[in-house]
Amino acid sequence: MIGAPHLTFALDTPGVSKGHLVVPKGADSEALLLPVLSLNKGEGPRLLVTAGCHGNELEGPIVARRLLDWLPDAQKCGKVIIVPVLNPPAAQAWSRNSPVDGLNLNRVFPGRADGPLSERIADAVSRILLPMVDTVFDLHGFGPRWEFAPASTTHPIADADLMRKTLQVAEAFKLPVTLIWDGPDTRGMFDTWAQSQGKVFICAELGGGTVDSDVLMIAETAVRNALISLGIIEGEIVWPTFRQQRSSRTLRTLPSDLLKSPARGIFEPRCSVLDEIKQGDLIGIVHPMDPWSSSSTDIRAPSTSIVCGLRSGEHVDADEAVALIARPVNL
Amino acid sequence: MIGAPHLTFALDTPGVSKGHLVVPKGADSEALLLPVLSLNKGEGPRLLVTAGCHGNELEGPIVARRLLDWLPDAQKCGKVIIVPVLNPPAAQAWSRNSPVDGLNLNRVFPGRADGPLSERIADAVSRILLPMVDTVFDLHGFGPRWEFAPASTTHPIADADLMRKTLQVAEAFKLPVTLIWDGPDTRGMFDTWAQSQGKVFICAELGGGTVDSDVLMIAETAVRNALISLGIIEGEIVWPTFRQQRSSRTLRTLPSDLLKSPARGIFEPRCSVLDEIKQGDLIGIVHPMDPWSSSSTDIRAPSTSIVCGLRSGEHVDADEAVALIARPVNL
Repeated sequence: MIGAPHLTFALDTPGVSKGHLVVPKGADSEALLLPVLSLNKGEGPRLLVTAGCHGNELEGPIVARRLLDWLPDAQKCGKVIIVPVLNPPAAQAWSRNSPVDGLNLNRVFPGRADGPLSERIADAVSRILLPMVDTVFDLHGFGPRWEFAPASTTHPIADADLMRKTLQVAEAFKLPVTLIWDGPDTRGMFDTWAQSQGKVFICAELGGGTVDSDVLMIAETAVRNALISLGIIEGEIVWPTFRQQRSSRTLRTLPSDLLKSPARGIFEPRCSVLDEIKQGDLIGIVHPMDPWSSSSTDIRAPSTSIVCGLRSGEHVDADEAVALIARPVNL
Repeated sequence: MIGAPHLTFALDTPGVSKGHLVVPKGADSEALLLPVLSLNKGEGPRLLVTAGCHGNELEGPIVARRLLDWLPDAQKCGKVIIVPVLNPPAAQAWSRNSPVDGLNLNRVFPGRADGPLSERIADAVSRILLPMVDTVFDLHGFGPRWEFAPASTTHPIADADLMRKTLQVAEAFKLPVTLIWDGPDTRGMFDTWAQSQGKVFICAELGGGTVDSDVLMIAETAVRNALISLGIIEGEIVWPTFRQQRSSRTLRTLPSDLLKSPARGIFEPRCSVLDEIKQGDLIGIVHPMDPWSSSSTDIRAPSTSIVCGLRSGEHVDADEAVALIARPVNL
């Protein structure tokens, strides 16, 4: 018998309680125990905070760990469930996908009870935790290979009322960017599944590249702002400082705004995130490995826009993404 | 017949000439052609600039590519040989070591003509290029997993006169840190081999973590400063701005200054590079994957020192390095 996912403790116990979400064993692994903290102060918002879906984006798990230190005392009402690391095997391997089954956990929701480990994690979260809440903060980063402006993101949602509510919570993080992401590939995402269940779901892309103390301060401040806006804690909103600026703007990015390299070579970034660029401005250059065999290729802005993400200087293949641009929602 | 390493062009041709350093084929690969630029303005300093020894440190190759654009016009005297990418297979794989033979190119010098590819590259560079110069700038970064203060570095050198000359050139980069690195493992390094041949050898650690346009500006400015100090070009020294500061200090780091994690877990950096720390100050915390099974571990400063490098927030094993500290040379 495979067994069913379950909690080792009662989530609805008043006050602070902790234990594990048991992801049953399968053909590819033993049972996996995900640490879970439940904070229950009765009536009010019901929030799930998840992090560590991708193992090379540990801004979220570290911020979630910081919440464990102060949120139990600060919480005024409602229920908060925290899962600091959704995908421990990937975190241990510093890999986006699971080293156990090669799958991207954020493409297999709502999962399957008898699938590979990633699908079993998704199934356990979807069946046991998601029904308990109204709102989800899923804490991601953009990974080690990108410079990225910290952003709270959502995909466009067909239900206008849910879209309005989601955008309101996303903007409450006060990150440098609130991003409406019109991405081409949303099948199997935790976002899409949670939204289909009527939940407000924010995917926070808390950084990109180096995970340093400045990035973590911005991330923690932003999550705290969002908790204040939900009414779970009291306090004053603090606008995080990013690149000596305290500002936040709401942008939309289209599928065509993910710029790809036209050639193989070494990508040289020539601008910075949050730069405002005009059509034709230089974003980066791709240099062939052998400068005597072919020329470098300029990558230029296709339209007036703002740079949200830039590939770190490294070798890229033809058709690999090197920049993500976006434009103000009101334009 | 394996064949001998050779150049496809005459290095001593006056003016600008270009071609390839041919690394002969071996049991593990075909022949490798490394692009080489030679700038010959007659008498004066003789400098070799190499980059891309490690494939996930592409600050150097990008700066070397920028030199191709302006150095031919700017050069006043002497000879400069530039090899923008020493290790193309590693650069294509975004890996420190070669994907062909698994070796660290910077641990196999002076190489072997009949060895695996990395040893053949080292052999070609040692036999064909190194004898042509007095000074080497080898452009590295600290890799994607570290926050690092850009530094020009040397190991301690037994020959006091060579040490003095080397330190003088290292300080001429005007990077935030000039670092005398008393490392435990220098066997097979390009540095050690070149110094044994009487060369002034600077290993520039131009960044760490994200390779963005700010890092590249600092790196290019520093290399330009060093070229001015050697008399190869004319111009004014510009102190690069790093974290809103323009400063440079000479530090020494001992083998015991590479701080290791005492436990497995997720490393949370709690300070920043260039922070001045006192004995007992918190540098970082290692959190066990399961917070209910064991406690987090603080990593504290063993002595008054300056932080040069900090591991990015990610999962580490016990005994893995998480911080590099150093102290002023005069202390």
